Amino acid sequence: MKLSDVLKQIGEPDAALAVQTQRRLDRLTKPQGSLGRLEDLAVQYCAITGQSKPAVPRAMVFTFAADHGVVDEGVSAYPRDVTAQMVFNFLRGGAGVNVLARHAGIEVRVVDIGVAYDFGTVAGLIDRKLMKGTRNMLHAAAMDRTTAERALLTGIELATDAVRHGIGLIGTGEMGIGNTTASAAIAAVMTGEAVDAVTGMGTGIDEAGRARKTSVIERALAFHQLSRHDALDVLSKVGGLEIAGMTGLILGGAAARVPVVLDGFIAGAAALIAVALQPCCRAYLIASHRSIEKGHRVVLDWIQLKPLFDLNLRLGEGTGACLGMGLVQAAVKVLTEMATFDEAGVSERST
Amino acid sequence: MKLSDVLKQIGEPDAALAVQTQRRLDRLTKPQGSLGRLEDLAVQYCAITGQSKPAVPRAMVFTFAADHGVVDEGVSAYPRDVTAQMVFNFLRGGAGVNVLARHAGIEVRVVDIGVAYDFGTVAGLIDRKLMKGTRNMLHAAAMDRTTAERALLTGIELATDAVRHGIGLIGTGEMGIGNTTASAAIAAVMTGEAVDAVTGMGTGIDEAGRARKTSVIERALAFHQLSRHDALDVLSKVGGLEIAGMTGLILGGAAARVPVVLDGFIAGAAALIAVALQPCCRAYLIASHRSIEKGHRVVLDWIQLKPLFDLNLRLGEGTGACLGMGLVQAAVKVLTEMATFDEAGVSERST
Repeated sequence: MKLSDVLKQIGEPDAALAVQTQRRLDRLTKPQGSLGRLEDLAVQYCAITGQSKPAVPRAMVFTFAADHGVVDEGVSAYPRDVTAQMVFNFLRGGAGVNVLARHAGIEVRVVDIGVAYDFGTVAGLIDRKLMKGTRNMLHAAAMDRTTAERALLTGIELATDAVRHGIGLIGTGEMGIGNTTASAAIAAVMTGEAVDAVTGMGTGIDEAGRARKTSVIERALAFHQLSRHDALDVLSKVGGLEIAGMTGLILGGAAARVPVVLDGFIAGAAALIAVALQPCCRAYLIASHRSIEKGHRVVLDWIQLKPLFDLNLRLGEGTGACLGMGLVQAAVKVLTEMATFDEAGVSERST
Repeated sequence: MKLSDVLKQIGEPDAALAVQTQRRLDRLTKPQGSLGRLEDLAVQYCAITGQSKPAVPRAMVFTFAADHGVVDEGVSAYPRDVTAQMVFNFLRGGAGVNVLARHAGIEVRVVDIGVAYDFGTVAGLIDRKLMKGTRNMLHAAAMDRTTAERALLTGIELATDAVRHGIGLIGTGEMGIGNTTASAAIAAVMTGEAVDAVTGMGTGIDEAGRARKTSVIERALAFHQLSRHDALDVLSKVGGLEIAGMTGLILGGAAARVPVVLDGFIAGAAALIAVALQPCCRAYLIASHRSIEKGHRVVLDWIQLKPLFDLNLRLGEGTGACLGMGLVQAAVKVLTEMATFDEAGVSERST
């Protein structure tokens, strides 16, 4: 599989089917448009998948885990070990994403794409490790360009395989101590905003910590001299392996005509790269929530995505994506399970 | 059962248990507070019910149906017959509330509390009809004060019975052509806002229709000369039977220490009356969404409730409440199913 082929494969969703789906929604026993964004989701789902009467999709969230060399600079409230420890927590089903995925009937896949820990063989873990964590972006490229491309292809392959096995809805998730630093660096370059405007508290540093984190990113960007017109270069120099994996997941989902539900800020950084590589993939994205992580608003506005909800979440892992995927499934049910005015013998509007 | 006894029975939720619940949430494998409003919901659920490790609650939405005499004034886009037609649709499972309730595993109860149609005996319909629709508020009290009180007691009894049979989460729903007119009248009196500020498009009238509806409400309020300090009087003169039923449901839920999830604007009007009758019941309320119906924001601000989401819904029936109840169930699962740092062997923050 070549990246350029995948990018070429991504086209616009079916606009005619979007119109047809809205027409069906308008025949259902409710005032037209009264289910608001649930109706929009149903329209988007049909236009993306090409199905006029879709079954409720089987859904899967991929939680990519990787470590970050930049953690050496003291940018995170938690030690690096937590990445691997949380991988075990995911595999045992005790993390937030497990609980919210079970709640919505969503399958979780945990992918080691770059954790700085030797897991050996662990049941349930998808081993796609490309590096034992990135290099410290302050002094070196986080990863080689070829590694970034391999990480993209990893995400693409996982999405492609999932769709081949019947998955109709994909969610992005991640775990990686230090990854809001990488995401803020990407967001600053890709949107052109000041680093300070996109750098937040992450897992919970204080204002002094945020100042340090901002300074680290500013110095890294001064060192690398990046251009948003080479998104793969941005991803490799200041990104992360889990971010690249999610970018690939987005591209693979879009190429396979399946909607991809974004989680929070880090997923947003992955989406910035995906949209830069192939602007058409924007139409396949659904933003589940707006995180309170500073910068997420900037990212969503840049991509022009309106989040479904705003619940002050900032956990990541795919937690928000799971809630959003539940809404997409509800939207599909509205379309396919509600009675029409004719079927129900209900009078239409009199005015 | 006497209304005054029920009002006396409603106390404040358990503040100590709220603190204890937040402490447990802070021990779970996530940065503190990172599940945002899901954590708030879990705290509220425990404080209300008095349970420290609650089971996922069985949930039930009550859809009260009733007609409105004020429909004679041409305030709605749909004919009155639609109320009864939609009751049949609810009973067959083809309406929006049925679909969204099934999606979240919520039971639906359909209550005829005042539909202008003789259903006879219909399987599944709870017959608590008090009038065949209200009188036209423009020329008469919508209902007698004693009828309003009986409607409140109906809602209280339904909530009490449900909790006795194991329901741990209650949602409000309604169907009644013309009921945004009654709700706007209630909202104007109870919040002191101008009628124009709380009168919206309902099921879909145009701006001329909204002007007519506003004028009808203004004339009705001039005729009745109401005071917010007699909420039962407001409810009986310009309210509706389904609104009164929902007010009772709120009071009965609060008295039985079960959270009540509000749907949209009409539920908001019911909540205004409930909070006026017993201010303590506010703490038992969860606002699922903010409807695009003009006035809903005013109502929620007045009660000081922050909605969980804003999805441009305006269908009613209990549809938004079902989505909100799903989030409450998710919140309870977060509290009870996530691993603690100790259980998972995950390191805590280093700073």
